[in-house]
Order: sequence, then structure tokens, then C-alpha cells
Amino acid sequence: MKLPASTEWVLHCATTLAQLEPGATTSAAHLAEYYDLAAPYLAKQLQSLVRAGVLAATTGPRGGFRLARPASEITLLHIVEAVDGTSSPYQCREIRQQGRGALRPEDCLRTCVLAEKMAEAYDAWRRSLAAVSLADILASLPASAPARTRSRLESLR
Amino acid sequence: MKLPASTEWVLHCATTLAQLEPGATTSAAHLAEYYDLAAPYLAKQLQSLVRAGVLAATTGPRGGFRLARPASEITLLHIVEAVDGTSSPYQCREIRQQGRGALRPEDCLRTCVLAEKMAEAYDAWRRSLAAVSLADILASLPASAPARTRSRLESLR
Repeated sequence: MKLPASTEWVLHCATTLAQLEPGATTSAAHLAEYYDLAAPYLAKQLQSLVRAGVLAATTGPRGGFRLARPASEITLLHIVEAVDGTSSPYQCREIRQQGRGALRPEDCLRTCVLAEKMAEAYDAWRRSLAAVSLADILASLPASAPARTRSRLESLR
Repeated sequence: MKLPASTEWVLHCATTLAQLEPGATTSAAHLAEYYDLAAPYLAKQLQSLVRAGVLAATTGPRGGFRLARPASEITLLHIVEAVDGTSSPYQCREIRQQGRGALRPEDCLRTCVLAEKMAEAYDAWRRSLAAVSLADILASLPASAPARTRSRLESLR
């Protein structure tokens, strides 16, 4: 069970964008330089965040990415699911209905209890990530972090 | 984030073994036939469960697999981790310390808050699976299930 390496990238990039002044943007190239990441691949991931409604992309000479809504309304789950999708890690292929031990379809109207318990664990994981917003993350950083982040980004222009 | 398809196999096979009479065993070949699974691959997965201390393997003409301890002491987490390992789905490669925005090592003595929140979600998933034992699973099956399971397995001999 593995999340893509880009999960770390997008979590950090979203946290960085959450520290910009309202309305300001940063390009994929600058974010790639900021974290020393592969720019074309990072740009793809940021586009996934745009499609998921987490980021907004603006065009033009000062165009780039910014949060699409307030940091308090973006959770870690929104960000992670934007790049990894929303499907459960456990796939139930109903093996209880195949082979010499097969149960009859009428005995399988309820979800298999094993699939149910695996789904509950996945829900617990999702709830945990849904309970943390980017605003919560910002609140846990040193008070000096946003100014430092903005000044480092500014030096890349 | 995906668990291997064999996760469903081993969860069902462990549930099946939990329904045997005390001391009774079943072979990998019979379990494969019971669920119509690839026997050599299933045998490998069952060996992983033996290494994890979930199953015990006996040899001889009536040899096979049985639970290594009472069903109440085997959790879904034990079974899932036996085939998928215990490493977190989120890998933190400390990108906060690289690139033009790199933090100084002395500012990174504490775990990154993003890694910390991802670890909390993984813990929630683990706790959820650790709270369900094979005995709980058996208790949720129809009262007729163990006798049916044993009779179907017996018919394969």
C-alpha cells in the first residue's frame, strides 16, 4: 500500500501557496525550484489539484497557481485524493462466491463482513485526513514561516 | 494506494481456518480449490502468514495449515500486514530540506507536520483493523457457517 511520491510534493506545494498574500500566485517552475523537483511532472500534479478544485490556475505574464478557496476549506484529504484518487486500497472480488466453497448469490446480498471491516479502516484513514485543513497546518508552523516563504519565492523571480 | 489482491485471499482463508475443529488442518491445495485461486501463489501467501505467526504449518499425510493461536488473538491487521508489510503508505523524503526554499537542518529537528498528520491517518487505519479479531468475524457469520465450511472442505479430500 503506497501513495505516490508526488503526495509529499503536492502537500508541501499547497502549504506553500497557502502562505502567499491573497491573490498572489506562483508558477510550477518556481515551486519546482523551491523544492528541487522535476518541473514537468510537478506541473501535471498541480493540474490535478486544479481539476480537483483545490488550486486555481491563472494565465498571463504573472500567472500561476493559487489556492482555489480559503486554506480552512482545503483538507489534506482533498489534496491527497486529487493525486491518488478516491478508490479504496482493498479490492473485494467476491471470492466467497467462487470455487468449491462458493456461497449462493442469495446468501451474499449483504456486503462481506471482511470487505465491510476493510472499508471501515479506510474510512478511519479518510476521516483523519479530512479533519486537518491547510489552515491547521499553517497554524502549526513558526510565526516567521510565511514571510520567509514569500521572500524565498520572490528571490526566484 | 492499493493492497495486493491476495489480501482478500488471506482474509478469507484465515476466516475459513478459524472454522475448523481444534487441531484440524487444511492444505493450501484445498483452500485454493475452495476459493478457486492459484494454488502456488496462495501457498506463498499462506507461508507469509506462518512467518508472521498467524498460521502454523504441519507436515505429514494429513498436514496443512491451522491458526497459530486462538481466533480472538488474531486481528485483521495481523493478517493484512503479513502479506503487505508494515510500512506507511506515505513516504516523507524531506523535500522541505532541498531546493531554493530548503529549511536548515536545525529547523527540521521535529518531524514535518505534514508527515505527522499522514502518520496519524495511517495509525487510524491500523487501529481500526487491530480492533477486529477473527473471532469477531466468526461471530458475525450465520450460525450454520462453520458446519457448512467444514463439510465443504471435507468433500475435497
